[in-house]
Amino acid sequence: MTRDECVGLGMWMTWKCAVMDLPFGGAKGGIAVNPKELSPGEKERLTRRFAQELRDVIGPNQDIPAPDMGTDPQTMAWLMDAYSMQEGETTPGVVTGKPPVVGGSEGREEAPGRSVAIITQLVCEYYDRQLEDTTVAVQGYGSVGANAARLLDDWGATIVAISDVNGAMYEPDGIDTASVPSHDEEPEAVTTYADTVISNDELLTLDVDVLIPAALGNVITKENAEAIAADLVVEGANGPTTSTADSILAKRDVAVVPDILANAGGVTVSYFEWLQDINRRSWSLERVNDELEAEMQAAWDAVRVKFEQRDVTWRDAAYIVALSRIAEAHEARGLWP
Amino acid sequence: MTRDECVGLGMWMTWKCAVMDLPFGGAKGGIAVNPKELSPGEKERLTRRFAQELRDVIGPNQDIPAPDMGTDPQTMAWLMDAYSMQEGETTPGVVTGKPPVVGGSEGREEAPGRSVAIITQLVCEYYDRQLEDTTVAVQGYGSVGANAARLLDDWGATIVAISDVNGAMYEPDGIDTASVPSHDEEPEAVTTYADTVISNDELLTLDVDVLIPAALGNVITKENAEAIAADLVVEGANGPTTSTADSILAKRDVAVVPDILANAGGVTVSYFEWLQDINRRSWSLERVNDELEAEMQAAWDAVRVKFEQRDVTWRDAAYIVALSRIAEAHEARGLWP
Amino acid sequence: MTRDECVGLGMWMTWKCAVMDLPFGGAKGGIAVNPKELSPGEKERLTRRFAQELRDVIGPNQDIPAPDMGTDPQTMAWLMDAYSMQEGETTPGVVTGKPPVVGGSEGREEAPGRSVAIITQLVCEYYDRQLEDTTVAVQGYGSVGANAARLLDDWGATIVAISDVNGAMYEPDGIDTASVPSHDEEPEAVTTYADTVISNDELLTLDVDVLIPAALGNVITKENAEAIAADLVVEGANGPTTSTADSILAKRDVAVVPDILANAGGVTVSYFEWLQDINRRSWSLERVNDELEAEMQAAWDAVRVKFEQRDVTWRDAAYIVALSRIAEAHEARGLWP
Amino acid sequence: MTRDECVGLGMWMTWKCAVMDLPFGGAKGGIAVNPKELSPGEKERLTRRFAQELRDVIGPNQDIPAPDMGTDPQTMAWLMDAYSMQEGETTPGVVTGKPPVVGGSEGREEAPGRSVAIITQLVCEYYDRQLEDTTVAVQGYGSVGANAARLLDDWGATIVAISDVNGAMYEPDGIDTASVPSHDEEPEAVTTYADTVISNDELLTLDVDVLIPAALGNVITKENAEAIAADLVVEGANGPTTSTADSILAKRDVAVVPDILANAGGVTVSYFEWLQDINRRSWSLERVNDELEAEMQAAWDAVRVKFEQRDVTWRDAAYIVALSRIAEAHEARGLWP
Amino acid sequence: MTRDECVGLGMWMTWKCAVMDLPFGGAKGGIAVNPKELSPGEKERLTRRFAQELRDVIGPNQDIPAPDMGTDPQTMAWLMDAYSMQEGETTPGVVTGKPPVVGGSEGREEAPGRSVAIITQLVCEYYDRQLEDTTVAVQGYGSVGANAARLLDDWGATIVAISDVNGAMYEPDGIDTASVPSHDEEPEAVTTYADTVISNDELLTLDVDVLIPAALGNVITKENAEAIAADLVVEGANGPTTSTADSILAKRDVAVVPDILANAGGVTVSYFEWLQDINRRSWSLERVNDELEAEMQAAWDAVRVKFEQRDVTWRDAAYIVALSRIAEAHEARGLWP
Amino acid sequence: MTRDECVGLGMWMTWKCAVMDLPFGGAKGGIAVNPKELSPGEKERLTRRFAQELRDVIGPNQDIPAPDMGTDPQTMAWLMDAYSMQEGETTPGVVTGKPPVVGGSEGREEAPGRSVAIITQLVCEYYDRQLEDTTVAVQGYGSVGANAARLLDDWGATIVAISDVNGAMYEPDGIDTASVPSHDEEPEAVTTYADTVISNDELLTLDVDVLIPAALGNVITKENAEAIAADLVVEGANGPTTSTADSILAKRDVAVVPDILANAGGVTVSYFEWLQDINRRSWSLERVNDELEAEMQAAWDAVRVKFEQRDVTWRDAAYIVALSRIAEAHEARGLWP
Repeated sequence: MTRDECVGLGMWMTWKCAVMDLPFGGAKGGIAVNPKELSPGEKERLTRRFAQELRDVIGPNQDIPAPDMGTDPQTMAWLMDAYSMQEGETTPGVVTGKPPVVGGSEGREEAPGRSVAIITQLVCEYYDRQLEDTTVAVQGYGSVGANAARLLDDWGATIVAISDVNGAMYEPDGIDTASVPSHDEEPEAVTTYADTVISNDELLTLDVDVLIPAALGNVITKENAEAIAADLVVEGANGPTTSTADSILAKRDVAVVPDILANAGGVTVSYFEWLQDINRRSWSLERVNDELEAEMQAAWDAVRVKFEQRDVTWRDAAYIVALSRIAEAHEARGLWP
Repeated sequence: MTRDECVGLGMWMTWKCAVMDLPFGGAKGGIAVNPKELSPGEKERLTRRFAQELRDVIGPNQDIPAPDMGTDPQTMAWLMDAYSMQEGETTPGVVTGKPPVVGGSEGREEAPGRSVAIITQLVCEYYDRQLEDTTVAVQGYGSVGANAARLLDDWGATIVAISDVNGAMYEPDGIDTASVPSHDEEPEAVTTYADTVISNDELLTLDVDVLIPAALGNVITKENAEAIAADLVVEGANGPTTSTADSILAKRDVAVVPDILANAGGVTVSYFEWLQDINRRSWSLERVNDELEAEMQAAWDAVRVKFEQRDVTWRDAAYIVALSRIAEAHEARGLWP
Repeated sequence: MTRDECVGLGMWMTWKCAVMDLPFGGAKGGIAVNPKELSPGEKERLTRRFAQELRDVIGPNQDIPAPDMGTDPQTMAWLMDAYSMQEGETTPGVVTGKPPVVGGSEGREEAPGRSVAIITQLVCEYYDRQLEDTTVAVQGYGSVGANAARLLDDWGATIVAISDVNGAMYEPDGIDTASVPSHDEEPEAVTTYADTVISNDELLTLDVDVLIPAALGNVITKENAEAIAADLVVEGANGPTTSTADSILAKRDVAVVPDILANAGGVTVSYFEWLQDINRRSWSLERVNDELEAEMQAAWDAVRVKFEQRDVTWRDAAYIVALSRIAEAHEARGLWP
Repeated sequence: MTRDECVGLGMWMTWKCAVMDLPFGGAKGGIAVNPKELSPGEKERLTRRFAQELRDVIGPNQDIPAPDMGTDPQTMAWLMDAYSMQEGETTPGVVTGKPPVVGGSEGREEAPGRSVAIITQLVCEYYDRQLEDTTVAVQGYGSVGANAARLLDDWGATIVAISDVNGAMYEPDGIDTASVPSHDEEPEAVTTYADTVISNDELLTLDVDVLIPAALGNVITKENAEAIAADLVVEGANGPTTSTADSILAKRDVAVVPDILANAGGVTVSYFEWLQDINRRSWSLERVNDELEAEMQAAWDAVRVKFEQRDVTWRDAAYIVALSRIAEAHEARGLWP
Repeated sequence: MTRDECVGLGMWMTWKCAVMDLPFGGAKGGIAVNPKELSPGEKERLTRRFAQELRDVIGPNQDIPAPDMGTDPQTMAWLMDAYSMQEGETTPGVVTGKPPVVGGSEGREEAPGRSVAIITQLVCEYYDRQLEDTTVAVQGYGSVGANAARLLDDWGATIVAISDVNGAMYEPDGIDTASVPSHDEEPEAVTTYADTVISNDELLTLDVDVLIPAALGNVITKENAEAIAADLVVEGANGPTTSTADSILAKRDVAVVPDILANAGGVTVSYFEWLQDINRRSWSLERVNDELEAEMQAAWDAVRVKFEQRDVTWRDAAYIVALSRIAEAHEARGLWP
Repeated sequence: MTRDECVGLGMWMTWKCAVMDLPFGGAKGGIAVNPKELSPGEKERLTRRFAQELRDVIGPNQDIPAPDMGTDPQTMAWLMDAYSMQEGETTPGVVTGKPPVVGGSEGREEAPGRSVAIITQLVCEYYDRQLEDTTVAVQGYGSVGANAARLLDDWGATIVAISDVNGAMYEPDGIDTASVPSHDEEPEAVTTYADTVISNDELLTLDVDVLIPAALGNVITKENAEAIAADLVVEGANGPTTSTADSILAKRDVAVVPDILANAGGVTVSYFEWLQDINRRSWSLERVNDELEAEMQAAWDAVRVKFEQRDVTWRDAAYIVALSRIAEAHEARGLWP
């Protein structure tokens, strides 16, 4: 965790929120510590101290921390409790990612994967492709990858490959994704359930309709960009495509739907959680999913319009949407004092 | 009004809110005075002084008083006004039970009786009993009893007995409940409309399908518990069944749906009123009733699951639901400092 | 802009809000300056200074300025920004009439005209008149007049005359309102698109079913009141009918639906904008229009009930509704200290 | 009480505070009511309501009301109590002029007269005149006049005339001022104690060393200015000299020490009261008088320097001091936003 | 620690503050726990939790806790720190009795004994008794007794007896009080330094000029009141004289200076500590002692005036002073709302 | 201006405040900009924007900025004004170093030099050296050097050398310091007034009693430490002695009074300014100087005690005083949460 990383992640969050038209900006903060080396008591005390240090600059109307690497719902519950006790009133809206029993939202965990699935469906529709006739390879089977894969599987797509750090399960006729445990359910188990194991590199160049890199950043590079055989790439991970690779794919007319749109379900449901907290009413899981779908559809529509108007890549279209909104708001308010 | 009573009532309210999954805790306060001996001017001044004394510990994000014995919508309007003037801005969300014109909710008055009726319908359904084939005796014909009786009457049940302090009207073929004025409409009038009058004790042991004690606490006791002939008891009053009687009924397999679930409609609509106030939008009566029904259904479902899983009484199931939620929230937040 | 004008406009706003049952009071303020003589920089600095001066008495829970003469969405954005920077947190709910990108509402611009159209439809319905068989003359083709005319045109009415300061376009078979630019789209252009031009005075006395004066105050006077040939007058402008003319029309049984009901769509959508801001969720244009229709219907119903019960004019019925609500709230709260 | 009067009095207060170098500005407000027609209960309720209306704009760090016509220490105590109860904590520093038992200052009542006496002594000293050899005529024997006369009497001056509305007591060998009751002690009693009675007009033109007009405004006019025989005029009342009279006296080399310096003891002790309140420590009467003397000396010195440097009248010198301080502070802070 | 004890102690504190004319009221609170059974960690956590519970009702402008039984400067430091961290800014003025390094006052520990000595000196003076010719017996040699004894010893009095729980040291020619360790310096050591030991009962009836009971309540009772041989009793402890004994002493013309005056040095220096904290400047020990002496003198003077005017006992005179001040303030402010 | 510089300067300020026993901590912040390249308008706007950015973390009870390099009283006035307008009330105590007319303190500019002079006098006294018999060389003739030199000159010392960037004026019989303009009065003028000019290096090694390096850091180094001929070094600049040079001087028994004590007059008068602001009373120049002298004396005494007790250098003694105070406060409060 460095200052520069925080600045970078904060900016990324700004684009995501702007694409999704959420009334949030972007900022990041963290503690330079390895949480795995801390006892639960140490983690709790450290979190509460952090709440004290952040207190002047966070709040339901200021900055609303959400969980990221090394934090979980329990961490967010401590942060909320510390802030609430300091302020003298229960303030669930100060952080998101809490357990539902203390003001968290249903469906938040699943949301990034769900948004990847929704966007995959929309992009397929756009290119007149039926999900029933679509083959998909998903790199990564953690929260994002497994949820995306299972939803697409449910909706009729054929998931031919999924992977974890040990390699990929390959099943040309389609994997029964429900029967393969995700990384959260059983770590690094994908290959043990596989009949045919291929490498992660092989997965990326499979001849599928849709490739969903949902594991790490920088996996599609100038080395393999020419070999990508999929027609559509939907970025589930943050930054899976290097900028050089991006240019190659653009030239090859491979459509790449960027991360700031595709996996924005997480921050969107964080926004829903905050709405539930400040308006003091929780939503059912069904409502969360319906509202998420509506938001993804609206963001997709806005990006699609720019894609068509400007004749640019999907990534550029998404950035045009984001930057226009920021610029327009900035111009309306002015910079003052 | 004693300190100990307040503590007891506060705890009861805590269970109700937890069963209903409302983001409220429980507390009670009061003034040791007989409101009937006060002039309207004295009541207003006393209420405003009370607002001043309570001011540091109430508020829309802290504690939200609701009316109870000896207070009415006018009292709550004064309390709201006093608090608002002190704070310097109109703050309807600081109390509930206000007249609709100053931020009160439609349907609040009727809500406890409506929740009793809804729960009665649900428990009948659970035991595969059609309301059309169900006979009901209701003790008490005040707000809770009359509203419950009339709604069940509307929905098809046969109300064979209703009562007030003077005794019970008994009509084996069903009473036309709309034509008998409730206590609020015409005090102590039930028996004057009756052809056949029986005693309140006789009412309790009538051979009906459902018995709804909706008058006072401690009316089903070890003395009459063996004689209760109803298959189902739905508690409309607070604490109508003594704990000994409860054990006897449990042994006799009489299903008793406890007060903290059955009459929780009142606090639920208080919650709706507060939502309307803090979100600054009033709901139509229709919406209030629909949302109340949805909340009662959800609470019923949660209690039913525990009832089935744990093989306990309905009362124990309700307490398991309530205590689990409190314990879970407590564990997530911790006790700090 | 004088102090007395502010007092008068503030009172008018109070009636409108009370008729619509919005939780707003009425107040007005302004700066005695000609905005056309200011540079954009001067306007911005003046607005920000004004925000500083008003700061103690405005706020999302106190007084919420909305735009009026000489202000536009940009002005409101500056006001919001100045207040937000002073308070140290983005507070969109402090003013309404903002551009949507900084918390304004969709549909606000169009709202007053839309409410005029909705009320016209309701009053026609009340008098068993089909819109398809109804002829309408609209004085004024600015925001209110043009929007009202176009919506009624869409809904089937025949718009036979529209006008601007230069005179009126008259088309007995109905004008294609979409093809005539409104004042905002092309200033003072109505007559240039007309085949037949009549005067504004002639427009007022056309033999139509509905007359909508939507330009200026005091256009229906004792001079022309006897000559008004329409059966229904729906006031789109503020105060188009003098009180003497009002009496004449009443005697002649011409139904006049007053401004405080007919053009209240503006303040109603201001209320919606505020709701969106304080609850932190923007509404789609479709939702804004649906909710506006529901609010207009409810206000209409309340006024209609008084119209029928009391056998008074529509104007008096509207004032009875407004004053009763204010009196009832005042009585419930009391005046204290 | 009119708006314009308030503006004028507010400006006057600004000059006084600036001459005395107090960290106060100037503002005035009032209620258009005749307090003599109100019962004590009405006065109390009116005062508390006024506190509610003013509440957003007063406060120990904002504007601090002090008593003026028609208000007394009891009024200020109610105002303080109302504000304190509204704010939820005892805030004596919100008003001055309170009774000492609730945070008022010793010596406040006497302060304006004392400052007149101190300034008289300083101006005599400046012109090398011993108080023992100085004759003084004082118009008015209310709080200002009586206190000034008695102090100067104590310090050795010879008070040859004092007056009230009925005329003046004249005693060329000196009046025993302690033995004549002031207006507050016994209203309109001066002439009843007198051996020789002269008119108020005669008093003004007595051949004394010092004339102190301490009754009303505009008593030295173009009619009598030529006839003023005193060498020194010290203004005890507000505005006793018309501007024409002022020019005549200037031409005649009669030194006129202006009200904004001479009677500023009142606002100075209001400042001391506020200091005692916000620093939570009361001062003894002795300390109040010592500090008042020091402040008067410092203000005198500042005015004297300008008087000598600029060769202007004492009045102009006082305004130069006041305006320079205001201008300097304004320039340092700037006007923003 | 019971609720009733708290009420009683709170009232006592109210009288003390009123006699001393401090701008404090009186209140008491506590935890029902034996601090000796707690570890330091438990004490710290309990104190911080207590701060959280009290937080809404304490504060430098609300209620300012001071130490009492079972608390020490460290406890008050924790309380201050907990409150400060919760409020987000260092707030030393929220409690008194802190260690000087975190905002405590010099001389606080010694203050109650010092006030007893000062009052003893004043009462001797009043009865024309030189300290050099005065013999004194002091019951109790804790903080109050030892400090009083040593100061009186320094100032010339002859301390003939001091005591602790084991009995009294008796030295007719005067004890060198500096050489006998106080209870805080060496617990229960008095008799071990004595040549002649007498009982505590014997001490009380010694034929001395001044008796200072500074150990426990209720030591002068109807049993020994007739036997008290001292001319003056100065109450160092709280409530050492029962009301019956008080009447007997009054009849016998033994002057009893009451606790609420004599040992009020403690709360007075608490007030000084608060002044230092809110005005952000610490005082030297010398200044604390000088100011304490001035305050004791002023309180003594006020009580003496009433003693002489009303011909009552010193105790009654002190209560008259206290109650008059409370009544006067109450009357000035009124009770509102 | 770098982050690391800020951290270093913040720590230094912490030691100074702790040595002086001021209730301030230490922090630094700045803008990476060359103020000389900014227009006054740009400086004002930049300062006001900076105030907005800092606003959440500064305040009279939080952090109180004081001027440093590149800022002047005007800058501090803007900062105060911006903060005050944002907060909605004039808050002079938020920054120090303001012009007196808007809440600045008399004597602040001169304070660092004055403290150097006072400490020089005290250290001479300590070593039994009469100022009349003491020769002094002062490096630097800016605010610190010139004020120190002139005061010591006034008090009887013989100033034999003063310098600026161009070299030193050397006058063995003593310079008339009043007649040589300081850098602020006439930049770089020292040598132009000199008969004999020597280099800055020569100045440092002059055979004087006291050497006061008051220009830059790191001027006494391992290169010239052996050649320092003065018996006493009083550090007027921050960090004029390198740590190696410090060891050499320590070995050679040259007494070096460290900067954190000697030039702490600046922060001390900043503290006085803040006291004047929060207590709302300005001090005369005489009082400022008297209080400064008292504070310097107290700090000197505390350091002297440690110097004697521990047999360490003056620098180490000063650090022992500072660190003990910080540690003691830290221990009393604990670190929580």
